[in-house]
Amino acid sequence: MAPEMTTLKGKAFDRASLESLMRRRMFYTPSFDIYGGVSGLYDYGPPGSALTNNIIDVWRKHFVLRENMLEVDCTMLTPHEVLKTSGHVDKFADWMCKDPKTGEIFRADHLVEEVLEARIKGDKEARGEKIEVEEEDLKKKKKKVKNIAAVKLDDAVRDEYKEVLNKIDNYNGEELGLLMKKYDIRNPANNNELTPPVAFNLMFQTSIGPSSNLAGYLRPETAQGQFLNFAKLLEFNQQQMPFASASIGKSFRNEISPRQGLLRVREFLMAEIEHFVDPEGGKKHPYFDEVKDVELELLNRDVQLSGKADVETTTIGKAVETGLVDNETLGYFLARIQLFLLKIGIDPKKIRFRQHMANEMAHYAADCWDAELLTSFGWIECVGCADRSAYDLTVHMKKTGAPLVVREPRKEPLKIEEWQCDLDKKKFGPKFKKDGKTVEAAIEALSQDLREKLSLDLQKDGKITIDVPGVGEGKVEVPKELITIEKRTRVENVREYTPNVIEPSFGIGRIFYALCEHSYWSREQDEARGVLSFPPTIAPTKVLIVPLSSHADFKPFVRKLSNKLQDIGVSNRVDDSGASIGKRYSRNDELGTPLGITIDFQSVKDNTFTLRDRDSTEQVRGGLDEICAAISDLVEGREKWADISKRLPKFEGQEEGVGPS
Amino acid sequence: MAPEMTTLKGKAFDRASLESLMRRRMFYTPSFDIYGGVSGLYDYGPPGSALTNNIIDVWRKHFVLRENMLEVDCTMLTPHEVLKTSGHVDKFADWMCKDPKTGEIFRADHLVEEVLEARIKGDKEARGEKIEVEEEDLKKKKKKVKNIAAVKLDDAVRDEYKEVLNKIDNYNGEELGLLMKKYDIRNPANNNELTPPVAFNLMFQTSIGPSSNLAGYLRPETAQGQFLNFAKLLEFNQQQMPFASASIGKSFRNEISPRQGLLRVREFLMAEIEHFVDPEGGKKHPYFDEVKDVELELLNRDVQLSGKADVETTTIGKAVETGLVDNETLGYFLARIQLFLLKIGIDPKKIRFRQHMANEMAHYAADCWDAELLTSFGWIECVGCADRSAYDLTVHMKKTGAPLVVREPRKEPLKIEEWQCDLDKKKFGPKFKKDGKTVEAAIEALSQDLREKLSLDLQKDGKITIDVPGVGEGKVEVPKELITIEKRTRVENVREYTPNVIEPSFGIGRIFYALCEHSYWSREQDEARGVLSFPPTIAPTKVLIVPLSSHADFKPFVRKLSNKLQDIGVSNRVDDSGASIGKRYSRNDELGTPLGITIDFQSVKDNTFTLRDRDSTEQVRGGLDEICAAISDLVEGREKWADISKRLPKFEGQEEGVGPS
Repeated sequence: MAPEMTTLKGKAFDRASLESLMRRRMFYTPSFDIYGGVSGLYDYGPPGSALTNNIIDVWRKHFVLRENMLEVDCTMLTPHEVLKTSGHVDKFADWMCKDPKTGEIFRADHLVEEVLEARIKGDKEARGEKIEVEEEDLKKKKKKVKNIAAVKLDDAVRDEYKEVLNKIDNYNGEELGLLMKKYDIRNPANNNELTPPVAFNLMFQTSIGPSSNLAGYLRPETAQGQFLNFAKLLEFNQQQMPFASASIGKSFRNEISPRQGLLRVREFLMAEIEHFVDPEGGKKHPYFDEVKDVELELLNRDVQLSGKADVETTTIGKAVETGLVDNETLGYFLARIQLFLLKIGIDPKKIRFRQHMANEMAHYAADCWDAELLTSFGWIECVGCADRSAYDLTVHMKKTGAPLVVREPRKEPLKIEEWQCDLDKKKFGPKFKKDGKTVEAAIEALSQDLREKLSLDLQKDGKITIDVPGVGEGKVEVPKELITIEKRTRVENVREYTPNVIEPSFGIGRIFYALCEHSYWSREQDEARGVLSFPPTIAPTKVLIVPLSSHADFKPFVRKLSNKLQDIGVSNRVDDSGASIGKRYSRNDELGTPLGITIDFQSVKDNTFTLRDRDSTEQVRGGLDEICAAISDLVEGREKWADISKRLPKFEGQEEGVGPS
Repeated sequence: MAPEMTTLKGKAFDRASLESLMRRRMFYTPSFDIYGGVSGLYDYGPPGSALTNNIIDVWRKHFVLRENMLEVDCTMLTPHEVLKTSGHVDKFADWMCKDPKTGEIFRADHLVEEVLEARIKGDKEARGEKIEVEEEDLKKKKKKVKNIAAVKLDDAVRDEYKEVLNKIDNYNGEELGLLMKKYDIRNPANNNELTPPVAFNLMFQTSIGPSSNLAGYLRPETAQGQFLNFAKLLEFNQQQMPFASASIGKSFRNEISPRQGLLRVREFLMAEIEHFVDPEGGKKHPYFDEVKDVELELLNRDVQLSGKADVETTTIGKAVETGLVDNETLGYFLARIQLFLLKIGIDPKKIRFRQHMANEMAHYAADCWDAELLTSFGWIECVGCADRSAYDLTVHMKKTGAPLVVREPRKEPLKIEEWQCDLDKKKFGPKFKKDGKTVEAAIEALSQDLREKLSLDLQKDGKITIDVPGVGEGKVEVPKELITIEKRTRVENVREYTPNVIEPSFGIGRIFYALCEHSYWSREQDEARGVLSFPPTIAPTKVLIVPLSSHADFKPFVRKLSNKLQDIGVSNRVDDSGASIGKRYSRNDELGTPLGITIDFQSVKDNTFTLRDRDSTEQVRGGLDEICAAISDLVEGREKWADISKRLPKFEGQEEGVGPS
């Protein structure tokens, strides 16, 4: 079980309050709400949309700009053939079972999880144990299990259930079916038996063009477009390796039964990096030294398989050195991912990196670590960092024949000693006729060991006998007049290889939601209203402009300030409503607006203004240019509030409503 | 016919060279190229992706930030019911005809256009007239008409063809069918007769969820999401009108037969604004005064219907005053659209605004002006600015019952004199029994005129007779014991209305392409290589860093400069290849990189650098901070090169390769 979730200030966290705030202030809202909504689809309102844009902006600077990544924007519509080759048509699926009597559909792993959790909870009730807050929460969500019976379990059974729950992502369809049989898991609503789990492909299908004969899908990831463009990107990068491409865009997943709000949706924003690296030489990264001292919390595969969840705190330098993390490039990105998450305001105590277990990995992955963020739903995968090896480039190259490889001149030519077979083509044709090509191919395919052995046969018997399935009786004799076999030295000047791919893949919507949970708290004096303490860089609106009253004298100052801030690219809103200043500020606490400017009678006299910090409610006073410079520094991340409050004189005027001045 | 396209410097424009540059340098590339591609789908490579992002960034500042628009991000997946209500299921279609023998499909209007254009061209050849460059170009494109026969036409026929071509967007399916009959238009490949045009819906269909019973589409525009959220957005805006929402995202259109590269694609980026305005009071705009002196070139509906294309140059203030443009809000946005286009670098001589003709307008539009940009394909619609009236909010409200209206307290209560009918409910029920409700509804629906007349009947006859279809024989008598009809005064304190919507809608891909054509030219000394003169603000990469050679002394300076520029958010690339400085600069001319920094031996000595302007190839010299400040000013649009070259000393050192120093 994940630790209990707390607010930014360490108080008990109430998800319902945050969700209510987020919907009320239009961070997000169910799509097509007036039509009854469609589950798994959400719209982002003005603050949500601005927050997302700002997260993306930081992401682009942190990754793309910083490392000169090659950003591309590829189409979402993708023809069948591409996703057939990539494996998604066959393997991008969840396990679904059906109640044959009612037609109701269940996602198998979720059902098993939910039923076992309910039984454990019933067991606790029966034993009179304390129910944890998190478990209470489960009751409030839309759940398949409506009533939890207080039934005591055997200790051994309870432990078995817990072990299954720890490994729930690790079962395939067949195994889930066995669990359902073993634990007698049925439709919780009516106790009907369910069909065994079958695979349900999670891609949205459509057809492209007017004649309906070109089947296509909405992409399940942005990665494929990057792989297909590999050769052109390498050319764009003047053949230099390693390099990374990146893409920001929507992807789609036709969830069987979406739940958990923004965490499991059918249409979502991703930011993905494909870092192409030489598989030889240990997958080094040129900037690894810059991050080697970054400390991470790692939860490896073996610990999980033993049914535990103990993390190990270590620098990424050490983790790569000991082999806990496979290579420098993977390690470099784990550290960079953490630095990014901290930059946008994720709570450092609520990050861990979990290694995927074998069955849990996507079909293309050789190794994978997830950056998980702690939320009230438990630890949630928000960034995946997979080593896709050469999987994708290899399958696409095999299918299309396009050279998705790197060719580089060798510093030292490679000399290879090998057994070579030479055929006398003139005699070969007349002897084997229509089978000539087949026999030739069979010889071409002979291993070095076999060639060595056959060279002796040739000397001894004057002929060789080789297997050629489909020709004659499957064996063919080749006399020495037609073939010579000799050991020679071949020189290779060019090295050709298929790069491996390290893929950090960010689910922006999940990060967005986790960030809101991590930023949320309420003031002691005003617990009914929440505060969202986003860092200024990513806050949806940077500045609230508040004239003391609707007095006409204030109006030109409002306009001047607002225009001046717009000119330096700082988003701001004016609240000249009749509400008290305290109330106006506290309304904007909910939107996460970090700074406030008050215009008062003093402003009219001497052109000075009060600048207020959302988190401390501290205020300083300064002239127009000083205030704007301070705001710009805070928004660009060049300074913190502590710097400003040292630089500018404190303002001790009483603030109405909330908090100390 | 559109005027001939020229380069930025007024020379003859060669589309093939620009397209070759754009593909070679990966501005864009056909999607799934290694799988043979899918027509109408393109990927944007690194410079294309960066250019798009920068256009969007300017757009967001120019519109959203500047006017505090409420940006939202809604899903692309849209259930059937929403698009049925909006009219897209029934009306978002093109006319398609089929060759019944071969199965080949044609878009009817394009076929008519192409065949008539070919005949006019054949006529010119027959008459020995000069063929215009643009017409020559047509031959090079993938066209249905492969061979153009030199056949002379009657003068009258030729004029008729030209008139049809001028109005080609103005025909519906039936009319296109008649034109095809009249002019004997067939499959150009085999002369087969074609089926009459039928409507082909242009939305991509899919199904949402595992049970396949929720049909959905990929949105054809971002607008619907904004309309559905209207009530929440109004609430977010604290009930203040007018206000605008905005959305940037992909939309989809399953083109019958895409052509013209980036101009007609199946998946495209849109930026749309929905400005909600009170329909009463002339649709004024609060900031109209700020733009009233902006001059536009307008091509109105009547001129086009007369078969001409003469534009009128006028200020938007005058155009609204004379009624040429219907109202201030529409006029405000036309001017703001032009200012935006100029800001990103569109050639002012290649913009015009064309009013839609009646049949050409989308089903929801009451009036529409397109910002058209001149390209080598002719005048291309790049921004639509439609008055959608109350169409969308009305249909969605009617369908769902959601109150998509504005309610505002009236300053003066409205007194309405009206005829009111009072029923004696106690007697009414027993008399009409099961028909009671129907009769009551029929009375409720009576018009004021009829009520007045019936009040006289009631006085005279002691009863009234009204039509009630479906009750008795369709007529019902109501005696005076059951009803009184009196003239009274009703007072309304709240005004309720459905806002009208003005919608500026930007096709970012088309603007992108037109911008590339408008920015393109080549230097006299180096005609083989193109230059893309994007303004620094939107150029994909801002600075090229060029060390004089690969000498080790230069390396720390390269890294210092690059990091410093990254810190101030300026994208830059290093070219330390062995190519000559001139060649390295000219490679980056093709990418539109506006600035170059040369690191030479002097730099190593005194930490000064040369800054080069792409367009003039002028160079200035300054210290690290001076150079970075100048770059920042240029990139943020605070200064132009002329300002910098006044401020910093000219550098007259010889530049290798191209141009004057």
